[in-house]
Amino acid sequence: MELGIYSFGEATPDPETGRTIGAHERIRRLLDEIELADRVGLDVYGLGEHHRSEFVVSAPAVVLAAAATRTKRIRLTSAVSVISSDDPVRVFQNFATLDLVSDGRAEIMAGRGSFTESFPLFGYDLADYDELFEEKLDLLLKIRDSERVTWRGRHRASIEDLPVFPRPVQDPLPLWIAVGGHPESVVRAGRLGLPLALAIIGGEPRRFVPLIDLYRQAGRRAGHDPTQLRVSINSHGLIEENSRQAADDAFAAYSYVMAKIGRERGWPPPSREQFERERGPLGANLVGTPEEVAAKIIYEHGLFGLDRFLIQLSVGTLPHEKVLHAIELFGTKVAPLVRREVERGSVIAMPAGGPAG
Amino acid sequence: MELGIYSFGEATPDPETGRTIGAHERIRRLLDEIELADRVGLDVYGLGEHHRSEFVVSAPAVVLAAAATRTKRIRLTSAVSVISSDDPVRVFQNFATLDLVSDGRAEIMAGRGSFTESFPLFGYDLADYDELFEEKLDLLLKIRDSERVTWRGRHRASIEDLPVFPRPVQDPLPLWIAVGGHPESVVRAGRLGLPLALAIIGGEPRRFVPLIDLYRQAGRRAGHDPTQLRVSINSHGLIEENSRQAADDAFAAYSYVMAKIGRERGWPPPSREQFERERGPLGANLVGTPEEVAAKIIYEHGLFGLDRFLIQLSVGTLPHEKVLHAIELFGTKVAPLVRREVERGSVIAMPAGGPAG
Repeated sequence: MELGIYSFGEATPDPETGRTIGAHERIRRLLDEIELADRVGLDVYGLGEHHRSEFVVSAPAVVLAAAATRTKRIRLTSAVSVISSDDPVRVFQNFATLDLVSDGRAEIMAGRGSFTESFPLFGYDLADYDELFEEKLDLLLKIRDSERVTWRGRHRASIEDLPVFPRPVQDPLPLWIAVGGHPESVVRAGRLGLPLALAIIGGEPRRFVPLIDLYRQAGRRAGHDPTQLRVSINSHGLIEENSRQAADDAFAAYSYVMAKIGRERGWPPPSREQFERERGPLGANLVGTPEEVAAKIIYEHGLFGLDRFLIQLSVGTLPHEKVLHAIELFGTKVAPLVRREVERGSVIAMPAGGPAG
Repeated sequence: MELGIYSFGEATPDPETGRTIGAHERIRRLLDEIELADRVGLDVYGLGEHHRSEFVVSAPAVVLAAAATRTKRIRLTSAVSVISSDDPVRVFQNFATLDLVSDGRAEIMAGRGSFTESFPLFGYDLADYDELFEEKLDLLLKIRDSERVTWRGRHRASIEDLPVFPRPVQDPLPLWIAVGGHPESVVRAGRLGLPLALAIIGGEPRRFVPLIDLYRQAGRRAGHDPTQLRVSINSHGLIEENSRQAADDAFAAYSYVMAKIGRERGWPPPSREQFERERGPLGANLVGTPEEVAAKIIYEHGLFGLDRFLIQLSVGTLPHEKVLHAIELFGTKVAPLVRREVERGSVIAMPAGGPAG
């Protein structure tokens, strides 16, 4: 089982100082964080694409390429590439190039995107939300499968037997489908035999079991080898030695971001009570001690039969040292626990009780 | 005066072995070459965007980002970004991100492109060649000048008061206009007050003096500060201790590429005689000993009043060691000579005679 981290390069006000760090400082920290994740033996680092002031990463492949020459073993992926509003030729070229500079460690995680800023910015209509994704994914897969491409669609110029360069080290370049929980999205991923990255950033993971079953069923029905139908869970988290402190730190940063996004989307402001439920034994968030976080990963491994677990450390800006420390704990404490228990075939049944810690 | 190198990441057959190196090996060599260019004190490294099998670089910002974390001082630029067939929002985001990961060393060199593969690949019509460039440049400048952008054009979706992130370290992000010798292109660059990168890859540099005069005139007329009207020359070259050997090596690689491109464009195959003229005292190419190459740069500095000189080392694949050695000679022998003579205000008048060496 692979373990890793993803980030959007948040640059929101630091809850301790009230100061918002600049893009330059944020990128510097991000590169330090990726380097450390590699050094402590984590398997994957992902960067998401956003187009709003709270996030510095709009060009994940460029940041990951900078990280590639500072790391040795860790896989480098988008998380996600919003392919609906991008050109699949450029996306492929960027990640094939990342694959070359990283000696074969690049991956694409393609998603429809949970934010909508990229649509007006790149001239797309949100009304075409699903058709755009379907078409762009189709083109991306064609480019991945063959150097020369012929393709026609409604939302991008046709390609008539043209080659796309460069070609990556890995053939095929790994491509995951990131989904937020829509059944049609998981069925599509299964039908195409593509690995699935499911974001669970609220609610109870056990409620997603039927969705993962649906994915595997769709994949088997389409005739794909079950070992190809890999599953990753992406969730929020923070790891510290003291569970209460982890919760206090994560909530301060999280509540700022969620309140801001909530205002745009008409959500109620996040309550601490709700937050405690989310980090409790049955909740989706991985905020707590290394043992608590490991237990939740092992629990979800038991639920879903996971191949990969990625944690967003953190939602909103935290002091750099706390993020670095969480990465270290993830690699040196959580990962060995998870690997040992997964190897043993341990299953953790969570009590349906109150918060952890 | 700044000195540097540009490359397209050629992967053509090695003239000595007949073997074409793969994309992975070529990228590895390229990163070594950029690292060495930085170490020997060169000022600029540029990577061009191409979309054909002979070149591995189609995503310059991604390769340059990988180079950024292996270098300290050298400026990293596209050479060129074919903005006519790209989205200026993505181009800006890629290079702003490169600027962040390189601590403020990124530049964009925008050009119309001397190859045409990108037009059908990205759905553009070559009939709009100049209008595309004009429009895309206009948008790129708007994004560079302000975080929020409002823009309308014919060849890209309108933008209605939207922000573009991230913002670079350098404000403004340096943007050069690369031209091949069209008077309207240099007038446009002058009118906009943008620095000019003139490719001279054949013929006699002295014949380009009126073009540079035209650029400076257009710039002054538009009211720009003359110190802002910077000029770079981009030319082919190779540096070795033995002038004849440099010519033999450069010609072998050069003639393969030029014959191949010439067949597509209806040029006659390159002759050694022509090649010798090009590397002679009045020719455009910088193939020879450190002293010969330095003399030609100083000569062209006298002709044009240069701010920058970039050499393409080499055209076509050469053994990695020869390229590394040429970079070392450029930094340790050519650069000190050029800097000293430029400081002294030396002017070299070239004899109108035969080949050098």
